[in-house]
Amino acid sequence: MSTNFNDIQQKIIVFRNERDWEQFHDPKNLAEALSIEAGELLENFLWKTTEQSRKLSAEELKNVKEELADIFIFLTYLCEEYKIDLLKEVESKVAHNAAKYPVEKAKGSAKKYTEL
Amino acid sequence: MSTNFNDIQQKIIVFRNERDWEQFHDPKNLAEALSIEAGELLENFLWKTTEQSRKLSAEELKNVKEELADIFIFLTYLCEEYKIDLLKEVESKVAHNAAKYPVEKAKGSAKKYTEL
Amino acid sequence: MSTNFNDIQQKIIVFRNERDWEQFHDPKNLAEALSIEAGELLENFLWKTTEQSRKLSAEELKNVKEELADIFIFLTYLCEEYKIDLLKEVESKVAHNAAKYPVEKAKGSAKKYTEL
Amino acid sequence: MSTNFNDIQQKIIVFRNERDWEQFHDPKNLAEALSIEAGELLENFLWKTTEQSRKLSAEELKNVKEELADIFIFLTYLCEEYKIDLLKEVESKVAHNAAKYPVEKAKGSAKKYTEL
Repeated sequence: MSTNFNDIQQKIIVFRNERDWEQFHDPKNLAEALSIEAGELLENFLWKTTEQSRKLSAEELKNVKEELADIFIFLTYLCEEYKIDLLKEVESKVAHNAAKYPVEKAKGSAKKYTEL
Repeated sequence: MSTNFNDIQQKIIVFRNERDWEQFHDPKNLAEALSIEAGELLENFLWKTTEQSRKLSAEELKNVKEELADIFIFLTYLCEEYKIDLLKEVESKVAHNAAKYPVEKAKGSAKKYTEL
Repeated sequence: MSTNFNDIQQKIIVFRNERDWEQFHDPKNLAEALSIEAGELLENFLWKTTEQSRKLSAEELKNVKEELADIFIFLTYLCEEYKIDLLKEVESKVAHNAAKYPVEKAKGSAKKYTEL
Repeated sequence: MSTNFNDIQQKIIVFRNERDWEQFHDPKNLAEALSIEAGELLENFLWKTTEQSRKLSAEELKNVKEELADIFIFLTYLCEEYKIDLLKEVESKVAHNAAKYPVEKAKGSAKKYTEL
């Protein structure tokens, strides 16, 4: 059986609270942490062409997985802080993007919606 | 009933593929996009103290929610690229962190595990 | 006698060209590198309050100096790519900011110019 | 006659102090600001291939110049905070890198020095 989204979010919070780390986890620091992890993720692709970035070594892929997990963990702490239902927000963002980027206009184009 | 994690990930992929955007979504560009969004998230806390960051205006909070959703969306595309089971990776990262930061040593400390 | 700005920029370019690294130094990669270094700089302040960030340890300060140097180096490569006169651009940006943020309105306020 | 490095740094500080912004300019916030600007710089290259990034439109180039200037401005504030002589630090970083990446080993290679 696969891991459940709510269960894993709960585990992340319990891990933190057992260590009394809420005191450091104000949103400013959490947003910094997330940004730092995003930089570490990006480092796996530095000096590669876009084509090369599709073929990572096993070690690079392992590294990428860990960075993605770290990013998810900080997302979870930020959602906990503001009692945000992340999946609900994602769903409404996708609906919003679908309206901004109608298929017939956006198909095959990397342009910003303001330029379509 | 709440939104399901796998369903929302599926919606994100369908949204993209309907627009033929896979061609732009190599991992290098996706990691850049995620990093850019993380910067936009951080901007909501700029020039604030850590205490002030806990009290966002309604408009700032709305903005934060959208940035968190964007970050989740790019996480999803990166996971799709490498067929990563994100929740499984998060679960093993939390277990790994629990070993690196034992409660009795890490409680109330913001030190890195290498300094504990 | 102090180091000259143009001389040091020249040294940075010579260092690179001796190693045949121009091939990797397209602007996309350089902008990634600069962003990654900015994340490493930020890491020195993570989990600190804004007050604590004013008091770095000797080791942290050494680290900060190296990150600032790295950022300057990537700035220089980007300027070389587009033949940008950085100091001239900075001067016109300061003039531009002075017009956007008149002293009498902006004094003591962290608001964005659009809100002044 | 070209703009002088020390003069422009001085102008940047005067601009700030006239507006009483030192109070917001603790290093944590400055490092955040620099990181946010680096993300805005990177946005100019998003969804481009590395080759495409060498050919910016006039508007994109204008944007890049402004972001580079902003990054230099925040570098200057951080140097002011810690009384860092930036050019001296850059010079010693270049010397340090030259030792880590000897021409005969590093020529034409994007490998990290730990892998050379």
